Amino acid sequence: MDQELVRKYAEFVVRVGVNVQPRQTLIIRCPVEQAPIARICAQVGFEAGAKDVVVRYEDEKLTRIRYEQGAEADLTSHKPSALRAWLDYAEDPDGCCLLALRGADPQIFEGLDVEKVNRVALAGRLFMKPWQEYTMKDRIQWCIAALPCPAWAAKVFPELPPEEGVERLWEAIFKVCRVDPDTDPVENWKAHVEKLTRCANALNEYHLDRLHFTSGNGTDLWIGLAQDARWEAAQSRAENGAVFIANIPTEEVYTAPHRLRVEGKVYGTKPYVYNGQLIEGFWVEFKEGRVVSHGAAKNDDLLAQLLESDENACRIGEVALVPASSPVNRSGLLFYDTLFDENAACHIAFGDGYPGTVAGGNDMTPEQLLEKGVNASAVHEDVMIGAGDTDITGFTADGREIPIFRQGEWVLQ
Amino acid sequence: MDQELVRKYAEFVVRVGVNVQPRQTLIIRCPVEQAPIARICAQVGFEAGAKDVVVRYEDEKLTRIRYEQGAEADLTSHKPSALRAWLDYAEDPDGCCLLALRGADPQIFEGLDVEKVNRVALAGRLFMKPWQEYTMKDRIQWCIAALPCPAWAAKVFPELPPEEGVERLWEAIFKVCRVDPDTDPVENWKAHVEKLTRCANALNEYHLDRLHFTSGNGTDLWIGLAQDARWEAAQSRAENGAVFIANIPTEEVYTAPHRLRVEGKVYGTKPYVYNGQLIEGFWVEFKEGRVVSHGAAKNDDLLAQLLESDENACRIGEVALVPASSPVNRSGLLFYDTLFDENAACHIAFGDGYPGTVAGGNDMTPEQLLEKGVNASAVHEDVMIGAGDTDITGFTADGREIPIFRQGEWVLQ
Repeated sequence: MDQELVRKYAEFVVRVGVNVQPRQTLIIRCPVEQAPIARICAQVGFEAGAKDVVVRYEDEKLTRIRYEQGAEADLTSHKPSALRAWLDYAEDPDGCCLLALRGADPQIFEGLDVEKVNRVALAGRLFMKPWQEYTMKDRIQWCIAALPCPAWAAKVFPELPPEEGVERLWEAIFKVCRVDPDTDPVENWKAHVEKLTRCANALNEYHLDRLHFTSGNGTDLWIGLAQDARWEAAQSRAENGAVFIANIPTEEVYTAPHRLRVEGKVYGTKPYVYNGQLIEGFWVEFKEGRVVSHGAAKNDDLLAQLLESDENACRIGEVALVPASSPVNRSGLLFYDTLFDENAACHIAFGDGYPGTVAGGNDMTPEQLLEKGVNASAVHEDVMIGAGDTDITGFTADGREIPIFRQGEWVLQ
Repeated sequence: MDQELVRKYAEFVVRVGVNVQPRQTLIIRCPVEQAPIARICAQVGFEAGAKDVVVRYEDEKLTRIRYEQGAEADLTSHKPSALRAWLDYAEDPDGCCLLALRGADPQIFEGLDVEKVNRVALAGRLFMKPWQEYTMKDRIQWCIAALPCPAWAAKVFPELPPEEGVERLWEAIFKVCRVDPDTDPVENWKAHVEKLTRCANALNEYHLDRLHFTSGNGTDLWIGLAQDARWEAAQSRAENGAVFIANIPTEEVYTAPHRLRVEGKVYGTKPYVYNGQLIEGFWVEFKEGRVVSHGAAKNDDLLAQLLESDENACRIGEVALVPASSPVNRSGLLFYDTLFDENAACHIAFGDGYPGTVAGGNDMTPEQLLEKGVNASAVHEDVMIGAGDTDITGFTADGREIPIFRQGEWVLQ
């Protein structure tokens, strides 16, 4: 790949994405194969004033071996210090921020005992929940950005030889992330963030009560919104006041559905990668907020497990609006990674909601959030439901109709 | 490299080197570039009955960036959880063992502020001391083994292109570690361990009081031994009774000098890599156990810092006998890595002694060990003092002379 662009990308994710502040510790999660890029980000992090950079290398192939060989009781038992290590950084008076670099084989766990994998992964998420609240509640700055790996590139470009595939995937990532040789990604993102923020502000002014999604594939879905739901976009603000971009790329404007007020049927419009395996051609039907039936052309049983992860995994915690004209969708690529594919289409997330998507939510107790209708779960899994013919209409509590999307595009005034 | 031999090497280091026991957690420290080999070791570890395999990837290039960019106060401040994470494994009722795979650029820290690097490294060792006691006292099984990396290979084979150098270094490692296509390394090592153990046993029967080293380079060194010093070799036994080989390769028979009873002058016979930098052509002079003067053709100031690391870094904690005919020496290579080079020549270690090298030492308090004459320090740095013309004579307390080495070779009866 173009080393200049990689450096530009690293500068952008560290300085704008996670926006490391002076004296913070920058924590970088990074696939073990991508150490050279972690080091570039570390260098940039120090230049931006970090007091230290901690890199946590992750090895999905090792994880596969552990899932294959380890007993479930051992894989689900965690040492308290493994959580404490993360909390120590969060509680450091100088603060910390998290840059999660990822580039996974979309089918790394294919052929394994799916139920075991999911239970082990779920136990891991539950164990790490006190740390994850720092990101879910935007207490610290955090940013997820992608790095290509051969197995991922092979999935996106099955017709290309591995090295060429990786090269093409880098180009695609640069393109949809607005990183190019001739312009400044920082300026590009400033304009982009402003546009998304205008849409979110406009939606917030309507104080919508519910949304109605329809499209040609049969989707007919009513999503009631949480009380005091707030539309958010692109840029978030951490407790220390620093702004950050949690997902790169991001094209979405999103809010909290009401966990008890979702009705109707919706069809998935993109394959979905769950715990390393693909769910394709799925549909779900909601009644009073709960999924009451579902199906999938591929891995319906996996979808069932996702929905049964815990009591509230069958309810949705997020609804997000993305136009069909988004760069990710225009790339014509299926990335087999939610970070990208969710930015090609409107989506909903099974499971946990973001406290920040109701007014004052980041300061509320779990009970107060539930009261507002924000869902709570150990999972948060985005599935794509938007297409080029998606219409979305908003309704206020007094029945006023607001056209939001027509034929997959924003029509907000 | 030959994948079959790599697998054989991995089998050997996991099953014989660290000798993982059923239900233990196998902890693997591994350079980030060597993930494929860590995974092979993980697989073997599970096959040998490990309940889990934890891989801690280490990144010396990132460490260099941190040393360059971080402030000393930040680099020497450690979170308690970082130690706790290791102790949690040691205290697990099922136990743990440690396989440390390493392959470092011998000059990774060249050009950095040497004093800062050493102080930061020292603070790290002090912080980790409670964990390190598990290995220094053989409370758990542990094993250090090497993997080639391009920067290391370039140092050993400066005339070769990088890939060929790595290939040649693999071949050299396989050879000096007795791993070859036609024989079983497990059997090879059984015979080798038996031979070293016979030498150690023979030395133990003499209950020696002191050693006298001489060689043509001017070395004339008297090393008094600790009270109840015991000669050890090759194989160690952990608290759980499992035997292991702490260093692969190992050619040494070693014991505890008396920290107050070393006299005379000794010349280094191989360059020595300290914290990523080379000390070459050094000599030291002892009086009453302390180094009272020293010099080096290269990096004498680094040697000075090593000796001043703490109060007792200027005393020696180990003396080890290695014949000039050892495979490492016969390879004709300078490995620029103590793990190998110490097995080409007799050596002494500045700093900490091994409690297990005095009778009953692993159960003694620090005060009791000092009383026996075993040195205590945060450093343990082996430097090579043996050559093809080294003579070593032992003396019992009543003045009986025992020839041990003549012209660099064992002559014990």
